[in-house]
Amino acid sequence: MSTARGVSIALRRARLPRASRVARPIVPYTPAAAVRSFSVSSAVGADAKKEIKYTSAAYPNVKRDPKFADLTEEHVRYFRSLLDAQSAVIDGVTTEAGDDIEPFNSDWMRKYRGHTRLVLKPQTKEELSQILKYCNENKLAVVPQGGNTGLVGGSVPVFDEIVINTARMNKIRSFDEATGVLVADAGVILEVADQYLAERNHLFPLDLGAKGSCHIGGNVATNAGGLRLLRYGSLHGNVLGVEAVLPDGTILDGLSTLRKNNTGYDLKQLFIGAEGTIGIITGVSILCPPRPKAVNVAYFGLESFDQVRQAYREAKGQLSEILSAFELMDGRSQNLVHGVTGKKRPLEGEYPFYCLIETSGSNAEHDIAKLESFLEHIMGEGIVADGVLAQDETQVQALWGWREGITETLSHLGGTYKYDVSIPLEELYQLVEDCRERLTKLGFVGDDDSFPVRDVVGYGHMGDSNLHLNVAVRQYNKDVEKAIEPWVYEWIQKRNGSISAEHGLGLAKKEFIGYSQNDTNLKLMKQIKNLYDPNGIMNPYKYI
Amino acid sequence: MSTARGVSIALRRARLPRASRVARPIVPYTPAAAVRSFSVSSAVGADAKKEIKYTSAAYPNVKRDPKFADLTEEHVRYFRSLLDAQSAVIDGVTTEAGDDIEPFNSDWMRKYRGHTRLVLKPQTKEELSQILKYCNENKLAVVPQGGNTGLVGGSVPVFDEIVINTARMNKIRSFDEATGVLVADAGVILEVADQYLAERNHLFPLDLGAKGSCHIGGNVATNAGGLRLLRYGSLHGNVLGVEAVLPDGTILDGLSTLRKNNTGYDLKQLFIGAEGTIGIITGVSILCPPRPKAVNVAYFGLESFDQVRQAYREAKGQLSEILSAFELMDGRSQNLVHGVTGKKRPLEGEYPFYCLIETSGSNAEHDIAKLESFLEHIMGEGIVADGVLAQDETQVQALWGWREGITETLSHLGGTYKYDVSIPLEELYQLVEDCRERLTKLGFVGDDDSFPVRDVVGYGHMGDSNLHLNVAVRQYNKDVEKAIEPWVYEWIQKRNGSISAEHGLGLAKKEFIGYSQNDTNLKLMKQIKNLYDPNGIMNPYKYI
Repeated sequence: MSTARGVSIALRRARLPRASRVARPIVPYTPAAAVRSFSVSSAVGADAKKEIKYTSAAYPNVKRDPKFADLTEEHVRYFRSLLDAQSAVIDGVTTEAGDDIEPFNSDWMRKYRGHTRLVLKPQTKEELSQILKYCNENKLAVVPQGGNTGLVGGSVPVFDEIVINTARMNKIRSFDEATGVLVADAGVILEVADQYLAERNHLFPLDLGAKGSCHIGGNVATNAGGLRLLRYGSLHGNVLGVEAVLPDGTILDGLSTLRKNNTGYDLKQLFIGAEGTIGIITGVSILCPPRPKAVNVAYFGLESFDQVRQAYREAKGQLSEILSAFELMDGRSQNLVHGVTGKKRPLEGEYPFYCLIETSGSNAEHDIAKLESFLEHIMGEGIVADGVLAQDETQVQALWGWREGITETLSHLGGTYKYDVSIPLEELYQLVEDCRERLTKLGFVGDDDSFPVRDVVGYGHMGDSNLHLNVAVRQYNKDVEKAIEPWVYEWIQKRNGSISAEHGLGLAKKEFIGYSQNDTNLKLMKQIKNLYDPNGIMNPYKYI
Repeated sequence: MSTARGVSIALRRARLPRASRVARPIVPYTPAAAVRSFSVSSAVGADAKKEIKYTSAAYPNVKRDPKFADLTEEHVRYFRSLLDAQSAVIDGVTTEAGDDIEPFNSDWMRKYRGHTRLVLKPQTKEELSQILKYCNENKLAVVPQGGNTGLVGGSVPVFDEIVINTARMNKIRSFDEATGVLVADAGVILEVADQYLAERNHLFPLDLGAKGSCHIGGNVATNAGGLRLLRYGSLHGNVLGVEAVLPDGTILDGLSTLRKNNTGYDLKQLFIGAEGTIGIITGVSILCPPRPKAVNVAYFGLESFDQVRQAYREAKGQLSEILSAFELMDGRSQNLVHGVTGKKRPLEGEYPFYCLIETSGSNAEHDIAKLESFLEHIMGEGIVADGVLAQDETQVQALWGWREGITETLSHLGGTYKYDVSIPLEELYQLVEDCRERLTKLGFVGDDDSFPVRDVVGYGHMGDSNLHLNVAVRQYNKDVEKAIEPWVYEWIQKRNGSISAEHGLGLAKKEFIGYSQNDTNLKLMKQIKNLYDPNGIMNPYKYI
């Protein structure tokens, strides 16, 4: 049965269209526009009228460290003399910066808000070096900030830390088509880098919802994971070089473009995922794969999580080198998207689980043939109940929308307690069920507005054992929060999981790191922090 | 023209066989047996009659550091009480260990030889922890040793350092077929791990000639590169966790099996490629891909290095996700192999350059179709002059033999000055030509035995910009060496290359690291060394 929304593979596998997939450009659905509408630039618009609570009030236990100096007019004069461009200093010390400074104080989720009175936007690593050296000598705390799209409050100040924003370091330095190595400033926007690469038949080996705003330096600093880690691997493997400025002003010139270089400790790795706590990344070199010529997306309904696991195992075996995403969405998350968007569901029936599978390859016919064989198998074995295969780019985007639209949907329904966790694959969904059962037993969950919790949903990157557990609430509620935390962290700890798979620690997860790292590891991490930042000026109050 | 050694694609592309490639197991030619014949266990056999020169004599500028204690009988008694297994201590202090200890003192190339009088083989991380703690407190220097297959003298003592060998830590701890994550002791032999994975339809994401002897802990400690890095990426991306013992006895329990874990500094990365200078790896967890169902190998002759580059670019674009190796061999290297082995050449004519291309995929027919289309293109465009495609496993092995046999061939011809370098792809072969020209002008190169240099050849991993420059000499000659070094390092430095792409630093490259790392980077590396190993007991005299 061919419909406007795809071809039901349950009934008509043979009618899968082929020609339309040849050399289709990759334009997966990405909610970049949605992210932008919540991001810095719009935060000073209509939304700004609703006050964002100060982090210092939301986290009363976190106190400003008195070892840090207060900003003076003399400090500001120094920075003004250093950075002569008009746009390089936003100064709330000697002037009334007012609304100009607020976007740098708060995050796009409007959950965190600091009290900074100074934003610096250096354009070169040398300028940044002088800034940090001065801050270090004068005990001025700083917060590195890229696109400010993080989810854990890592890129905004808590108190009066100086914001150092990388937006003016935004040049692509070089690209070598033979090797696929891109060298670029930290402040280049991910989508800009990917578009530049698209014109050269290559792909940035990272994709995520915030691509329209996030900076590649920030991606590296937070070791961003995203949608296609399954295929292209982590930044620890793809980043070939990092240029960074240390707190004492030292410039680490590690922008190697070599794929292999075994000459000493791989220091750049420390900066990947350090969240700006030991230095500020100013440039990266990264290995970019050829852009796939064919992309296919299928969407399935399944009756149980065991079947999701079976489907994943089969996809891994049969689609192998062309599998680029295997995403899990539970039925409840899809019901919420349906309820909010009103869009027609991709499948006729309703199922407790859905999967989105994407393939990316160099030969459309081969990819379709592999997919056909895979679909025949999983349908024949009864592993999936029903499914559709996108016929064109519009449908590819529409199907991705059922996965990527979940976050935005939830933001329309009130608050969300979000947990981004890695747990062993066999128990990936059990956490959602256990959490729902717990909150239901405690009487928090219900359909009418008297219940604080609307629903407990789960989705995520099956291929990475990375679950997003989301508790959708009608409004934030301390009793609900206390019922989830630390219970959820204890649950994860028992399975040797990670309390932060890809979002990082920031301020939000700092106090819970002990559930994923033992005392020895923490002690060793603190050694590294003290080695690079003995005065503790870099992104204080956060991370480890 | 179909022949016993393949099908000439120049003449008969249409006759490429298909059926024989379905579900063929991967058994590439690997000179594991050859490596074993040179390795530890045989070094005490017939070869041992030829004395290996002591490193302390070959490197007279390297002096034993007087800060280290001399081994006493009391020390040995402590270790004996700790390690009660008969085979765990080889003691040349209180007994005459004699030949038993020599294999641990010298490397398989017979280039390095130390003076150790004690070998310890702990079986658990707890035993190792007590050993290192004791050594650290008593200022006893140690050398971590795995399979002792390294090429830079990193795994044997220089003076009387205690050898700590990982051979008794040799258990595979777990494997998860759903995620492909293997957890194993450091002392598991690479080939054993790969065979274990083969039985479970997976692949160790690293392959190299020494696989029959090397330990996976040593592979990780040296960040081994090998033959298929192009496809599966580096160990920095594939290693998910490292368990290691630090010099003070601290056990770093970092054996995460999670693909994503953003909870603090990624400390394990420091141990990947640290060559045992900050701790000893006792276990690793590593992400293993599904084993490809189809492997194809083709071998080409080309008229110029420019055409090699073109062929690589086309292979990357057209073979894309199935390309698993693109190896370069110059005509001179193939002439040497032909001369020594007497084997019939794969191609009728002789060419200045040859390439070996391997594909690994999940569908044999698709792979062959892609290869056919690629071959048609590069033949049609005149990029390659001639080529053959292996028809069965025997031919796959035979073709790999022309690439992997180079090292062994050279060892039969006298000595070899070996340089393992990363340089930008466009100049990859220029180094060989410049070196040959230089040595020829200096009158060192010639066909008869009065010339010290037999030939200057180049081969390597085109896909990784990794060249092996080999100067084949009739005997080692200080004048030749002086003509090459530091000239070769200066050449590499000018191109921002790496003086050690994959072999590491060890003792051989320690003094030259300045050609690939600036003073700032070296200072930061020394900070790390001092942080973890303030007494400097770990693998002294080597690395940075």
